[in-house]
Amino acid sequence: MKAEIVATGTELLVGETLNTSAHFLTGKLSALGIEVDYHTTVGDNSERLEAVLRQALARADLVVTTGGLGPTADDLTKELVAKVLGLELELDAGSLAEIERFFARRKGPMPASNKKQAYFPRGAKILPNKLGTAPGALVRQGDKTVLILPGPPFEMEPMFDDYAYPELAKLVGTAAERMHFRVIKVFGIGESAMEEVLGDLLQQTNPSMALLAKRAEMHIRLVARSADAAKANMLLGETEQQIRAKLGNKVFGRDEETMIGIVGAGLRERGLKIATAESCTGGLLGAALTQEPGSSDFYLGGVVGYANELKEGLLGVKADTLRTCGAVSAEVARQMAAGIRERTGADLGLATTGLAGPGGGSEGKPIGLVFIGLATPDGVEAQKFQFYGGRESVRQLTVMAALNWVRLSLLLKKGEPVSQ
Amino acid sequence: MKAEIVATGTELLVGETLNTSAHFLTGKLSALGIEVDYHTTVGDNSERLEAVLRQALARADLVVTTGGLGPTADDLTKELVAKVLGLELELDAGSLAEIERFFARRKGPMPASNKKQAYFPRGAKILPNKLGTAPGALVRQGDKTVLILPGPPFEMEPMFDDYAYPELAKLVGTAAERMHFRVIKVFGIGESAMEEVLGDLLQQTNPSMALLAKRAEMHIRLVARSADAAKANMLLGETEQQIRAKLGNKVFGRDEETMIGIVGAGLRERGLKIATAESCTGGLLGAALTQEPGSSDFYLGGVVGYANELKEGLLGVKADTLRTCGAVSAEVARQMAAGIRERTGADLGLATTGLAGPGGGSEGKPIGLVFIGLATPDGVEAQKFQFYGGRESVRQLTVMAALNWVRLSLLLKKGEPVSQ
Repeated sequence: MKAEIVATGTELLVGETLNTSAHFLTGKLSALGIEVDYHTTVGDNSERLEAVLRQALARADLVVTTGGLGPTADDLTKELVAKVLGLELELDAGSLAEIERFFARRKGPMPASNKKQAYFPRGAKILPNKLGTAPGALVRQGDKTVLILPGPPFEMEPMFDDYAYPELAKLVGTAAERMHFRVIKVFGIGESAMEEVLGDLLQQTNPSMALLAKRAEMHIRLVARSADAAKANMLLGETEQQIRAKLGNKVFGRDEETMIGIVGAGLRERGLKIATAESCTGGLLGAALTQEPGSSDFYLGGVVGYANELKEGLLGVKADTLRTCGAVSAEVARQMAAGIRERTGADLGLATTGLAGPGGGSEGKPIGLVFIGLATPDGVEAQKFQFYGGRESVRQLTVMAALNWVRLSLLLKKGEPVSQ
Repeated sequence: MKAEIVATGTELLVGETLNTSAHFLTGKLSALGIEVDYHTTVGDNSERLEAVLRQALARADLVVTTGGLGPTADDLTKELVAKVLGLELELDAGSLAEIERFFARRKGPMPASNKKQAYFPRGAKILPNKLGTAPGALVRQGDKTVLILPGPPFEMEPMFDDYAYPELAKLVGTAAERMHFRVIKVFGIGESAMEEVLGDLLQQTNPSMALLAKRAEMHIRLVARSADAAKANMLLGETEQQIRAKLGNKVFGRDEETMIGIVGAGLRERGLKIATAESCTGGLLGAALTQEPGSSDFYLGGVVGYANELKEGLLGVKADTLRTCGAVSAEVARQMAAGIRERTGADLGLATTGLAGPGGGSEGKPIGLVFIGLATPDGVEAQKFQFYGGRESVRQLTVMAALNWVRLSLLLKKGEPVSQ
């Protein structure tokens, strides 16, 4: 089945609004095995939109529209879909009652113009809008299907997932080959080094493999094509095993898993409490550790020792060390980690100190030089990192490297081998 | 002048890559007064891309393509543009030398396939690519113009700004009406309240006005249309004054200005040092204060007192107060602010404590309840806020509200009236 996505809305054609809907829908349709051949964006202009719809119906089996369902006169999608399919518009009493209820909840009368939103091409299956006044619709005519969706992504996306996806899945049938996805998440290796390590694996076609460089991590995106979900899962599982064999503990998670989710779960499972001492990250590490609800199970808090006086006063770093080694040094990272562990009674003390830039670098201490300290009941250690990129990138990489060290130290505790 | 933007790339049609280029280009073309009527996205398919290019040339004066300039066989944009315009491809020796130098810098030989990137439709103006191997091109043929740009946004955007924009500006001429933009940034008022306050102003057409709700702030986007930049600036300035008269100090900045930039500059100017005591924000406030280089001029650091024991141990909050008032209370916010100011020797102590959710709310203390404390040489105060939205949204709003209070207190010092 071939599809075209048609977005309508003048705001998309003056640079005001980024069209994320075409991207969202393309991913979902691809997963269903529907091939998306075109995206077309056109303004709220009756003549142009009609021509675009006629062309889309001529070259695709499925046309998905977003936008143009509002109450105003320039919202024309349903009217024009009905016209090009040769259908009448009909009032749907149920939808009208829903729209009236929507306004009643907001304690206002329904403007007369909103009645327009309850009209649909005859025979359409109506898709409820839980978050707005514009219902969507699925219209079938011969071997052509038009899916009509609202413009705002926060209305469109749940409507698609809840009501449109199941209809399209029925339409596609169970025999069709679908796409199944898995994302393997990696930290501690760059794109070109990873290409080298993965080698021939990158050439395989089912699952196919793409490397995506994210801000502070690398993703390997696997796509398996099969009509049989179990078989696709098996293929994905085999490739994941091959990747893990090559990358070892540099793989930290997959799909929805996040570094902080994994570290948090590891700490919680072992009943460990952590505290932070931050310099270059300025609070970002604490912010990451408290990102998910329930973080008080494992995070006590910490100190942002941005000025050296605070490293001394609140963390007990020795003035001598700051003078002789400098704030960005392994010894200061160790003292910060040990200091916060001692002063908070945490099991683990985690410290960051580095040069995020863009100013302040020198020959011996270039921008991107970072020391991370980790204090545990077994002692205190520091690791040196050299990161590249701008200030925000160095800070994000520091947070990831610090969390990753905690992850690896938790794995070590469990007796698993660590490759780093 | 009417334009169509044509994006090519199969990665855009399987949901892998979001097309941000059409959005970027549309904004720039609109600013030049060029009307963008269509965006079309098509895969790396010779037949379909050719048809799309023919259609685009038939309905637009200017066709802008992105993508399809790579060294592989399925990169076809220049070849097909040449074909539909009836032009030969010619080797450009200068571009070839540039590509060879690009590989020499990376210490590798140029793969033979990359030679393809030095061929252009005859007569094209070549646009250098500082960040990759694919130059762009501007081709004119009769009254039609085709602008050929690379796909990766980090290559395309600087190429457009540095080389394509000036060419298009010449093409459009000085007589054409252009769009001039200004963004007014507001904090502390919701969208519907703002609509009410602005009233009739929202109806004006030059400049026109749009409200955009950002994560933790509101933007008013003004667009003035004029061939005369000075006149447009005058129109924008007049409207900005009218908006400021209605919204007072709720307007915190404009265009590239940010809340943290303004607060940082205000502190630096007055030689004031600030320290933070964070609970619900977990380090985000410190992270915001250290986001820009040079933040050590005004930020000392602080304490993340996530667990109550740290509020006591590191900030000196009284156990009694925690027990009787609870951690989320005005009194605890005041003690945190006073505690961090005293322990760090800062001029200002800024504290946050609140319920970010999603769990932990109660009848008397609902999710989103936040207290912010501010300690200054003149004493210590707390303010209560009730925010809405998810955990991340409550945390971001808390950071903005805390910074905004510092902004307002700095204004007050200067004797300016504050409306809040």
